[in-house]
Amino acid sequence: MHLLLINPNISASVSALIESEARRSAAPGTTIEVLTAPFGVAYIETRFEALAGAWAAAQLAAEHHGRADAVIVAAFGDPGLDALREVLPCPVTGLTEAALASACLLGQRFAIVAISARIRAWYRETVAHYGLSSRLANIRALDEPLADIGRVQQDQASRLLDLATRCVEEDGADVIVLAGAPLAGLARSIADRLPVPVVDGVSSAVRHAQLLVAMQPKRALRGSFAAPPIKANQGLPEAIRVLLGSPPEP
Amino acid sequence: MHLLLINPNISASVSALIESEARRSAAPGTTIEVLTAPFGVAYIETRFEALAGAWAAAQLAAEHHGRADAVIVAAFGDPGLDALREVLPCPVTGLTEAALASACLLGQRFAIVAISARIRAWYRETVAHYGLSSRLANIRALDEPLADIGRVQQDQASRLLDLATRCVEEDGADVIVLAGAPLAGLARSIADRLPVPVVDGVSSAVRHAQLLVAMQPKRALRGSFAAPPIKANQGLPEAIRVLLGSPPEP
Amino acid sequence: MHLLLINPNISASVSALIESEARRSAAPGTTIEVLTAPFGVAYIETRFEALAGAWAAAQLAAEHHGRADAVIVAAFGDPGLDALREVLPCPVTGLTEAALASACLLGQRFAIVAISARIRAWYRETVAHYGLSSRLANIRALDEPLADIGRVQQDQASRLLDLATRCVEEDGADVIVLAGAPLAGLARSIADRLPVPVVDGVSSAVRHAQLLVAMQPKRALRGSFAAPPIKANQGLPEAIRVLLGSPPEP
Amino acid sequence: MHLLLINPNISASVSALIESEARRSAAPGTTIEVLTAPFGVAYIETRFEALAGAWAAAQLAAEHHGRADAVIVAAFGDPGLDALREVLPCPVTGLTEAALASACLLGQRFAIVAISARIRAWYRETVAHYGLSSRLANIRALDEPLADIGRVQQDQASRLLDLATRCVEEDGADVIVLAGAPLAGLARSIADRLPVPVVDGVSSAVRHAQLLVAMQPKRALRGSFAAPPIKANQGLPEAIRVLLGSPPEP
Amino acid sequence: MHLLLINPNISASVSALIESEARRSAAPGTTIEVLTAPFGVAYIETRFEALAGAWAAAQLAAEHHGRADAVIVAAFGDPGLDALREVLPCPVTGLTEAALASACLLGQRFAIVAISARIRAWYRETVAHYGLSSRLANIRALDEPLADIGRVQQDQASRLLDLATRCVEEDGADVIVLAGAPLAGLARSIADRLPVPVVDGVSSAVRHAQLLVAMQPKRALRGSFAAPPIKANQGLPEAIRVLLGSPPEP
Amino acid sequence: MHLLLINPNISASVSALIESEARRSAAPGTTIEVLTAPFGVAYIETRFEALAGAWAAAQLAAEHHGRADAVIVAAFGDPGLDALREVLPCPVTGLTEAALASACLLGQRFAIVAISARIRAWYRETVAHYGLSSRLANIRALDEPLADIGRVQQDQASRLLDLATRCVEEDGADVIVLAGAPLAGLARSIADRLPVPVVDGVSSAVRHAQLLVAMQPKRALRGSFAAPPIKANQGLPEAIRVLLGSPPEP
Repeated sequence: MHLLLINPNISASVSALIESEARRSAAPGTTIEVLTAPFGVAYIETRFEALAGAWAAAQLAAEHHGRADAVIVAAFGDPGLDALREVLPCPVTGLTEAALASACLLGQRFAIVAISARIRAWYRETVAHYGLSSRLANIRALDEPLADIGRVQQDQASRLLDLATRCVEEDGADVIVLAGAPLAGLARSIADRLPVPVVDGVSSAVRHAQLLVAMQPKRALRGSFAAPPIKANQGLPEAIRVLLGSPPEP
Repeated sequence: MHLLLINPNISASVSALIESEARRSAAPGTTIEVLTAPFGVAYIETRFEALAGAWAAAQLAAEHHGRADAVIVAAFGDPGLDALREVLPCPVTGLTEAALASACLLGQRFAIVAISARIRAWYRETVAHYGLSSRLANIRALDEPLADIGRVQQDQASRLLDLATRCVEEDGADVIVLAGAPLAGLARSIADRLPVPVVDGVSSAVRHAQLLVAMQPKRALRGSFAAPPIKANQGLPEAIRVLLGSPPEP
Repeated sequence: MHLLLINPNISASVSALIESEARRSAAPGTTIEVLTAPFGVAYIETRFEALAGAWAAAQLAAEHHGRADAVIVAAFGDPGLDALREVLPCPVTGLTEAALASACLLGQRFAIVAISARIRAWYRETVAHYGLSSRLANIRALDEPLADIGRVQQDQASRLLDLATRCVEEDGADVIVLAGAPLAGLARSIADRLPVPVVDGVSSAVRHAQLLVAMQPKRALRGSFAAPPIKANQGLPEAIRVLLGSPPEP
Repeated sequence: MHLLLINPNISASVSALIESEARRSAAPGTTIEVLTAPFGVAYIETRFEALAGAWAAAQLAAEHHGRADAVIVAAFGDPGLDALREVLPCPVTGLTEAALASACLLGQRFAIVAISARIRAWYRETVAHYGLSSRLANIRALDEPLADIGRVQQDQASRLLDLATRCVEEDGADVIVLAGAPLAGLARSIADRLPVPVVDGVSSAVRHAQLLVAMQPKRALRGSFAAPPIKANQGLPEAIRVLLGSPPEP
Repeated sequence: MHLLLINPNISASVSALIESEARRSAAPGTTIEVLTAPFGVAYIETRFEALAGAWAAAQLAAEHHGRADAVIVAAFGDPGLDALREVLPCPVTGLTEAALASACLLGQRFAIVAISARIRAWYRETVAHYGLSSRLANIRALDEPLADIGRVQQDQASRLLDLATRCVEEDGADVIVLAGAPLAGLARSIADRLPVPVVDGVSSAVRHAQLLVAMQPKRALRGSFAAPPIKANQGLPEAIRVLLGSPPEP
Repeated sequence: MHLLLINPNISASVSALIESEARRSAAPGTTIEVLTAPFGVAYIETRFEALAGAWAAAQLAAEHHGRADAVIVAAFGDPGLDALREVLPCPVTGLTEAALASACLLGQRFAIVAISARIRAWYRETVAHYGLSSRLANIRALDEPLADIGRVQQDQASRLLDLATRCVEEDGADVIVLAGAPLAGLARSIADRLPVPVVDGVSSAVRHAQLLVAMQPKRALRGSFAAPPIKANQGLPEAIRVLLGSPPEP
């Protein structure tokens, strides 16, 4: 099984974290490929940045999905996930969707620990989009500028642990979700210091992608995830044109 | 006052409808400019098409907002609206947001009449995103392929009127929202044949944009609509780089 | 265009504040008329007071709407608004409804700053009635008796500013709504000291009333805002009898 | 125990139905007094009519509550109930509130059968106000003009029974609520022909009023049902002035 | 009238509290019988303990309901209540359901004061199951191990009072619900020291049971509270077999 | 990896279906063990039957979990799942929870196809308990008595397929969930005849159980899924006593 993880951000250091955790999480025989967005920002905190990341992810997915059994949008907030689910012939998931699916099987209410205060609004809206607001205990976040997005785990481990503890003690969380690709893998190292299960986005996404591939779900022919009706288009990247079912542009 | 309307689709015929209705709705002294997406699809029915349209709208907004007092995303579903609200220095609104704001001041429950069955899922999610699901009576839609998106009003007027009537009689709608830029202006011509107020997206957006400009709202410095924190980026269109506060790429 | 603003309270000093802000907000050529309730209380904080105000507003509207292009219920909480929308032939709006419509076009989550702790329950229920609870970040309020309802802006400006700031910093509000006719106009003077857009009820209502008049919405003949079915009545003020479609009482 | 039932409508024939069912439902030793609104309409179907009824009920309650152990607002939709709960020293309830409280102890989802199509919007909003929308299976209603509001039970019994049956078979209702004072007592006569429990508003309100009196609940001194803060007022009926804690007007 | 109260826990001391408060609350002529679970735990704080209590309650109800006019599940959280409502021929209620029904007639928002921090999740889910989350102001709880469940009222009275006060002052509760059979009767003794009405589970359940008996509701033949369809079963306690409509097992 | 599936019903024929589908779904090297409830009913349609099944499942889980890496409650509706999650040291899931988790990764709105009309209320409440009501398109069900619960797939295949098709065409479902252990495996055989992905409860539960085992989640020490506080108990089955942390009963 070949899994394609798309980092919708430009940070190669985060892609390395993603790849490392994905390899640790994947079942034997699964191959992991991580692509980094050729354009965009260092990490997504806002709706605009998510839009840029979604479009970058869409292009990468269009170009490279052919060799993948499943595609993972490897940023918390899942930029572009719903859109890609309409057009890709294989299963696709994202870090948030998969992490919440895991969290919901480990407890009734989950809390999210995030890397920046600004990012909370986008995460709150993502949880609401998935219809899971009633199961969200809280979103707590670091509130200082990040010196190096690739080193936030090391630099901020104790503060992240403290935030997670407060989610349990003060917010009644049954499960902690460590949010954001820059935290990929942190769950392994702090699990022992938390009193509740902790969920990692990348490993959840890898495992759920594998689960979806094993299910061999039929591609939707009806409903809102069937391929978009074919219609006139122009100016789109060639791979996206093909995804939309168009003949090559003259 | 100069209003910039961005059609996130490639259809010049729809842009013409938008422009025509916008001019009829605008207050004296307001100038109207409609831009058509240089890339994308003929009209948006799905999440993927909305993503393409959002990115096209973002680029056009980035390039051209300088001369505008307000920007309007001129497709129902408001692709990219929340994202643009973060980065543009002027007010920005969209057809759905504005139409619902109008509808909510004319009745308790509104229904949406749409041009394709497929489009309903995207509209339903848009209404949910605005927190207004409890005020949505129903979404009814045409269910045949559209021969010519620029002529759907003429071709389908009686069927649209029938759908609207059923929303009132069967779904308990107090107000009808005619959804989609291709229906721009239809509300004027069928208002007399409907027993409840009918709301048009383009004219609502023009009027709400004018209202927002008149309010002179301060640009957010905090909260989730402040400008995104400045961070490393690469590969973005120059105008978007500038919106994100970056110095020119070397 | 002639706008009729009805202060459902007996405070002439508040009517003066309403009138002043309404004039500042109205488009050129719009005339403003403010009526003060002949019976009721100094300001509405509770459901019972709102009921008295609603009935006073209904009587004033019944008597005076004939010369108005639109009617505004000029108290936060919108006492009687839904009821008047059923019976008046012209558009009608209220301070809360209009302020929230504005706020929702400036951000995702708004907070309300109010003049008394007691008033919060009524406001919370008003927001819930409009289906917007999911967009309400918090309601914060002064918690001391008000010496002079007509001078609360001057007397309490710094405390109100502090409450608004906490709504942004602690509650994640994207927009602040200054609630209550006694605060009419305050938004103008403190906007510069707040980091997010601030919305004023009176100016919002004036602008939305103008917008509704410009839309020329058809009066509902069906749905829940059509005129009440004609039926036997007795003992009602003459103007209300007429609104209800009754012949003069013998 | 003395119960004061206030018919917020002017129909003496409906008051007679209310009184009859109230007497049948009351515990031995309970005395029943029914007052009919001196002004208002024949029966309430709309928000405006509810406002008139609420104000009439408020005046009657203010004048006559002194001899009552509890007060009942005897119209479905409970016009003025929340307001009266703030100002009356004794327990107060209403037909809808009490009927829903009974229904919720007999099943998970209830349906409402009503006497007019128009009335459904007001009932839906009433249920929503009580936070019980998730337990509402449907509201079905007669859809013809009522020849005589005092004889709707007799004239329409079979159609009401048919509506109730459809609520069970098609909407999944566990319990039927017969809504509206004009249907007072009908539940007794059709209970045998329905396959689920049926709830009557008047008898529910009488029983819940008795229950509340037995509880001897303390009058709220804090929270949103404490008496409104004393403040200037003018022009109010004397009994209402007293309820608001004011000294007699000079 | 004979009321059967089932303590789903094994604590005879709590049964004594239940019985005492039930007798004080019951109408003259009502006889009270309290049964204590023959198996289970001392008091229910968790979902697993609630399951054990529900099964114990089911067995007791099956064996003893024959002599009862109504059955009360006498633990907050109402273990097994919905299940018993399906199979018992008489009305059945529980402490939470009845307390919330009372609370909702005394105010808009209630708060729950509970005897252990752990118990809050189960209570929150119970309130949600009844669809009343929007009326729940907060759940506050003691957070120390309980030395003697039968003496928690005496041992913790002042702390419980303090929690209740904070629910009013900080959470905006209109009504306080004292939760848990171990607190049966406490409401009487602290009512004077609280500024809002206070509701007791046992007395509410007794009164609501009496109300339901007086209603003489028809047993459901359709809907989700009709008796379960008869089908093969095995190994069940004889009394439960009979409840399920089975002939005696050979 | 050893998975323990507990059929909370007494039907060996359904256990055989469960075992067959579980073996087909499990990863290589996973061993499958299916236990059948020693007491209870043939299949669960109601809350009371679910309670009996939950208690039977609890006992089996208590006795046999020691050799399992994860436990699956193998009935739709997940009787006892939340309770078992508190007390078992290994991961535990259920057919509904797992099927919905899968469905939510394949589309936005799912529909459930069920084997009896009566069962729908219980399923609706189960979906609500998981907070997923907003993603539920509909629940459609067979409405005839089932001749043989072990043969419902064969006997009713075409009717089930028809129900599923209507969920897509009329209810807008993106995904179909075939509900109930008696339908275990049907998804494989009808997937080709449905236009959207179809989810099977048993295979979903097996795959999610494997996923959870792979995650190696820490057992909760805090929050609402930590082991219940140790307290006095009596009369419980020995294995359950041990689960509750009690020393052997003398």
